[in-house]
Amino acid sequence: MLLDAFWSEVIGTATLILLGAGVVANVILPKNKGFGPDWLLINFGWGFAVFAGVYAAFKSGAHLNPAVTTGLWVADLPFFSGDAGTIEPTFGHALVYYAGELLGAFIGAILAFLAYKKHFDEDADPGTKLAVFSTGPAIRSYGWNLVTEALGTFVLVFWVIVAGKTPSELGPLAVSLIVVGIGASLGGPTGYAINPARDLGPRIAHFVLPIPGKGSSDWGYSWVPVVGPLVGSVLAGLLGSALI
Amino acid sequence: MLLDAFWSEVIGTATLILLGAGVVANVILPKNKGFGPDWLLINFGWGFAVFAGVYAAFKSGAHLNPAVTTGLWVADLPFFSGDAGTIEPTFGHALVYYAGELLGAFIGAILAFLAYKKHFDEDADPGTKLAVFSTGPAIRSYGWNLVTEALGTFVLVFWVIVAGKTPSELGPLAVSLIVVGIGASLGGPTGYAINPARDLGPRIAHFVLPIPGKGSSDWGYSWVPVVGPLVGSVLAGLLGSALI
Amino acid sequence: MLLDAFWSEVIGTATLILLGAGVVANVILPKNKGFGPDWLLINFGWGFAVFAGVYAAFKSGAHLNPAVTTGLWVADLPFFSGDAGTIEPTFGHALVYYAGELLGAFIGAILAFLAYKKHFDEDADPGTKLAVFSTGPAIRSYGWNLVTEALGTFVLVFWVIVAGKTPSELGPLAVSLIVVGIGASLGGPTGYAINPARDLGPRIAHFVLPIPGKGSSDWGYSWVPVVGPLVGSVLAGLLGSALI
Amino acid sequence: MLLDAFWSEVIGTATLILLGAGVVANVILPKNKGFGPDWLLINFGWGFAVFAGVYAAFKSGAHLNPAVTTGLWVADLPFFSGDAGTIEPTFGHALVYYAGELLGAFIGAILAFLAYKKHFDEDADPGTKLAVFSTGPAIRSYGWNLVTEALGTFVLVFWVIVAGKTPSELGPLAVSLIVVGIGASLGGPTGYAINPARDLGPRIAHFVLPIPGKGSSDWGYSWVPVVGPLVGSVLAGLLGSALI
Repeated sequence: MLLDAFWSEVIGTATLILLGAGVVANVILPKNKGFGPDWLLINFGWGFAVFAGVYAAFKSGAHLNPAVTTGLWVADLPFFSGDAGTIEPTFGHALVYYAGELLGAFIGAILAFLAYKKHFDEDADPGTKLAVFSTGPAIRSYGWNLVTEALGTFVLVFWVIVAGKTPSELGPLAVSLIVVGIGASLGGPTGYAINPARDLGPRIAHFVLPIPGKGSSDWGYSWVPVVGPLVGSVLAGLLGSALI
Repeated sequence: MLLDAFWSEVIGTATLILLGAGVVANVILPKNKGFGPDWLLINFGWGFAVFAGVYAAFKSGAHLNPAVTTGLWVADLPFFSGDAGTIEPTFGHALVYYAGELLGAFIGAILAFLAYKKHFDEDADPGTKLAVFSTGPAIRSYGWNLVTEALGTFVLVFWVIVAGKTPSELGPLAVSLIVVGIGASLGGPTGYAINPARDLGPRIAHFVLPIPGKGSSDWGYSWVPVVGPLVGSVLAGLLGSALI
Repeated sequence: MLLDAFWSEVIGTATLILLGAGVVANVILPKNKGFGPDWLLINFGWGFAVFAGVYAAFKSGAHLNPAVTTGLWVADLPFFSGDAGTIEPTFGHALVYYAGELLGAFIGAILAFLAYKKHFDEDADPGTKLAVFSTGPAIRSYGWNLVTEALGTFVLVFWVIVAGKTPSELGPLAVSLIVVGIGASLGGPTGYAINPARDLGPRIAHFVLPIPGKGSSDWGYSWVPVVGPLVGSVLAGLLGSALI
Repeated sequence: MLLDAFWSEVIGTATLILLGAGVVANVILPKNKGFGPDWLLINFGWGFAVFAGVYAAFKSGAHLNPAVTTGLWVADLPFFSGDAGTIEPTFGHALVYYAGELLGAFIGAILAFLAYKKHFDEDADPGTKLAVFSTGPAIRSYGWNLVTEALGTFVLVFWVIVAGKTPSELGPLAVSLIVVGIGASLGGPTGYAINPARDLGPRIAHFVLPIPGKGSSDWGYSWVPVVGPLVGSVLAGLLGSALI
């Protein structure tokens, strides 16, 4: 069952990043039909990427995000509960989820690269090509960038923890719209990683893929979208579990 | 239980304003990834801010808005009803809700300021910086601005009162989309406060925060987005309760 | 009960047109915060106008549109069915619905005028001021304009008739998104009245209101958004009832 | 019952293409009210086209797409199951669905042509007029274009197969939003046919219709949006059925 959960997170996170990196590629790589600045398009693109990814990861509770795994762990809530049994929040299980999420994100980034291969062959700024894979700050300031990432992730993970208290039949649409909202509202300064795997997996893919005219993978910034979301998820796990 | 409701309104309204002020900051403060005019982005941003806020305030019925509290009070409908009991619509209870909503809005504005700190440090018109916090009229005319705010709030509070007559399983999504719609349709002249706490709490935050290059908090206009929504909510409470 | 249904249609259609004319005003009248071309904003604005209007008209089945009334009548389906009883599809009942819809649309247009009063006072092309109230063709050609209106209305009324065959718990959101879709997809040539009351009621309001710098109410075109939708609704009633 | 299913696919796919080709016409043909680049408008237009089409095809399970039919066939899942009985996944039944989908797409394209007749009469690039009907690549490269189409269709068909594992009450909205997401995220390079009938039926319509100033129907590219989606659907059928 844990192996099922691992592969489920791989497939779900790969779907998330294929579509998430995809919408960014569509908007910022030249000659695409969606080319041109449109933040709302990016927000809905990532939101429906979550939507598709959650359906794909039906065997693991669809964390797709180490911040979600961490928040549930801190709040002592089960990672997954279904007909096949329950996956309890332990250190070992968290590692399995983290590994699946990171591997899935890496695979999803490669698939997005393949979908947009001809557009990566076009001339574009190296920073633009990196931006399809990983987030970067609008104004570089590690401390404040971390605050922004922590706040955005807090909203997401806090929602995941308390959502069960408010009934609806929206299924995976609810979390998708929360992600649309976080992107619209808190994505401006850093591009809203709000998910360590979403940023690190594609950054590794950028580092190893043979992308024409690619530049630095900006490892100097890479810790911010990992640490910021983890800080936010721990705070959300603490406050959320106190509240419910 | 009333204390729970107070803190619930604080947390919910803080979430609302963090995301609501956030989307405005993203669109109007320089160098943001969402920078540039896009009213629909602002509408969806505020709508999903309501969505997140309603989930966060599950212990109080998620008013998040003194106009909603007032409308329910006028219509003599309970403020909250759950496993823990019912909060009846009384003057004292209304004061508790008002206080929680105002405090939450103040806190949310501070959090949004922190999320966008580096962008507030950039040069921008003082009016632009204020606009992240509080609403202002496109054409200043206290009387007509009040009419617009009253109409928008009427639609919201009337919906809150009659919504239970039409079954769906949308949960908090329904009110969120109503707010998207009011913003799209009636937000043009005044920026749709439709919520006294949403405007006053952040205006106080603007007044006290050390924002670089900030100007006036425009107290001369500040009564319009308080009185207009209250007028609209009283009318909606009267008509709505007559109808159901 | 029929009187309740009449007033329900009045309130619901007034809500529809307040928000629907409102979003057009926001987008096309000068100095509004939503000013500037954005068809998707108009589509979502009208869609959520339907959403709000359907909730408001819970005592009549929320037709809000003589084309819907006509389609149900042709298909011999009840106009309303609830705890209070059933309103059968008869000529007399149809007249009551038509009257409520037209009166509501007239009132809603006046409310939208009040909400945007200061923006109507600004200089703008007389055709722009009319466009807040009523639809007009992008390329005038009565025959083809009628075809477009009939097709759009067909999609709407056909959906209303067959929707019950496909379960969901979306409530009023479903028809709202159908209207968003019709606007996006078939609204280009004529501005999608797809509703005789939506066009005629506000046109009468435009005719009688003291709008500064207003021009012709374009009565020459006014029959197209009445006849086109009625043709579409009759066809949809026939095909839809044959199918279910 | 099979005849019912055939006509159901005809009606549903005609609705899909009327609205889907319609939104493209609105955005790219001159003088339309929705004229101007807006990828998100196109994405939502196609998404709600699916939404309307699924409701219209309630007697056949609403495939509307040979790739969906093929994926279910590969996964050995029933094409339809309802009160009237079950349509098993066989070669003969697949042919019936294919035929209905192709005929429906052809009819839908003609209806969209009629709705936008006056705008087709305007001067526009022959490639623009073709683009209302059929997809074309942003950068022509048959191999990579096929990869992109296969990936997009994989996401769609995989979702169709696994969606039942995740409960919600969204009904047809869920698949509609998946299609919005695929368009936003993977539509950039090829315009996301992700459906052989969606591309081939309208291309035949373009070939036979008397469109003023029309050019080539680009048959050289026409196999890509047929073969790519079929490859993606077979892979999704295999992986999806292994997973559930």
